[in-house]
Amino acid sequence: MTLAAGIDVGGTKCLGVVIDLDRDNVGERDIVRQLRHPTPHASELVDALVDMASELGEVDSIAVGVPGLITLEGVMRASPNIPGSVDVAVGPELTARLGRRVHVDNDGNLAALAEWRYGAGRGARNMWMVTLGTGIGGGHVLNGVVQRGVNGFAGEIGHTVVNPDGPRCTCGRKGCWEVYASGRGLGMLASGEPGESVIHRAREGDADAITVLEAFSRWVAIGLSNITNVSDPDVIVIGGGVSEAADVLMPMVRRWFVETLYSPEQRTHPDLRVAQLGEHAGAIGAALLPMFAS
Amino acid sequence: MTLAAGIDVGGTKCLGVVIDLDRDNVGERDIVRQLRHPTPHASELVDALVDMASELGEVDSIAVGVPGLITLEGVMRASPNIPGSVDVAVGPELTARLGRRVHVDNDGNLAALAEWRYGAGRGARNMWMVTLGTGIGGGHVLNGVVQRGVNGFAGEIGHTVVNPDGPRCTCGRKGCWEVYASGRGLGMLASGEPGESVIHRAREGDADAITVLEAFSRWVAIGLSNITNVSDPDVIVIGGGVSEAADVLMPMVRRWFVETLYSPEQRTHPDLRVAQLGEHAGAIGAALLPMFAS
Repeated sequence: MTLAAGIDVGGTKCLGVVIDLDRDNVGERDIVRQLRHPTPHASELVDALVDMASELGEVDSIAVGVPGLITLEGVMRASPNIPGSVDVAVGPELTARLGRRVHVDNDGNLAALAEWRYGAGRGARNMWMVTLGTGIGGGHVLNGVVQRGVNGFAGEIGHTVVNPDGPRCTCGRKGCWEVYASGRGLGMLASGEPGESVIHRAREGDADAITVLEAFSRWVAIGLSNITNVSDPDVIVIGGGVSEAADVLMPMVRRWFVETLYSPEQRTHPDLRVAQLGEHAGAIGAALLPMFAS
Repeated sequence: MTLAAGIDVGGTKCLGVVIDLDRDNVGERDIVRQLRHPTPHASELVDALVDMASELGEVDSIAVGVPGLITLEGVMRASPNIPGSVDVAVGPELTARLGRRVHVDNDGNLAALAEWRYGAGRGARNMWMVTLGTGIGGGHVLNGVVQRGVNGFAGEIGHTVVNPDGPRCTCGRKGCWEVYASGRGLGMLASGEPGESVIHRAREGDADAITVLEAFSRWVAIGLSNITNVSDPDVIVIGGGVSEAADVLMPMVRRWFVETLYSPEQRTHPDLRVAQLGEHAGAIGAALLPMFAS
């Protein structure tokens, strides 16, 4: 057994897992140990992570995923969903406190790595993953390598602008893809009705709810076709809370995808697949990170 | 001397060059031979290219750039600006007719390769180039490798949607980046006045013309910041006819870029550079292709 710990820091909770890297397959049921704690203020984040590392027990490696802009050195430059998160040196501080190298990367990158290694993206040569949760995370695994960009900030597909005069995003700009194609976006398109409720009504055949989901699916598809026009991937994995409504949403998303893609009849389309690792994708990806980090 | 011929097929003309690959630097003045012919109907394209290859004389290699969706095998699947261009096997037919392997790639990819090797992108690790001409071409050179995607269709940044309810694009969809940030887009934003005339008036200080260029520069910047959010490059090279007005446009584009980029104060920005190889970039990139093709 090669035990690897991964901790995924979310906006509300931190999820830690231990997995066995010697297994060829790791799903949500193959997690050796796991625990969760509320996410503290950024000033207490490193302390909380040190405690979690200790609680996770003896392991061969430990790594962490955090949302937002993370430098190649593991410094959290900014994270809209974690108060006080400007310039927190998560990686360097954890490395010093734990006396071992602790890799830190963006949570969207790590979810992509996990789905590529163990989930819906297995076998893909050029895979994008989008995590449609409260906001949107993104990650790109090309020839087995997570694409981090020159600062570490690649994959921020949620903040690409798809409607420059649209509503304001949490990032301060207007009309980011995240404004429309996230859980928050679904609530906005439903005039404040919770996403779960709209989806429930659509499953029952309610015409108004279906209209809302069609509008939402069109926005989701616009981002996916933009990714395809830029990267021409073989697989796009769709994860996050929104993917739990894949039964109603994916047929709509696939239809709109063809409408919005450049020259759809002249190309092989990427496989649009639903994520398989659920809420554990980020933590499992963190556990994988030391094996894949350069 | 290692003589390499490259032919760039454009919407109106085909430009052929021969360069010496043994030189460390090749600029527009270092072209050994060049010629240009009008672009024929797609059904006569291969014949015309065979003739041009013969006119370019004895060389060590020959390769071709064409606009549109080009497969990894060099088949032109579709090219909106070349009539009849569906499924023309340019690469395989030229290889058979000339009795030597002839590589064919997308013109945007090749312009990017040329600027990376000899022009404004020298030294970049993660470089995007956008060619803002009549339409928009794009190319991505990552660690010295042109990113073609799994079908060969990567880099089509011009057809990413930035305003889904905007005016119709030549590709049939609505609100592609090309609708706004191309030469054609500038004409549209100027209510039909030619781009050159607007730029001339702006240089003279005309307030209305400056307002038009500000709107245009904002659209250019939106695409550049979208690229940055996705790929986090160190350099973006801006080429095409539009770049000839860099003196008035670039200061505006740089200002809007900061407005539209996610978390601009928390990151190192990519260098926004003006292309150096002018209209020869595509043909020089084609000449380079055999050296870089896998």
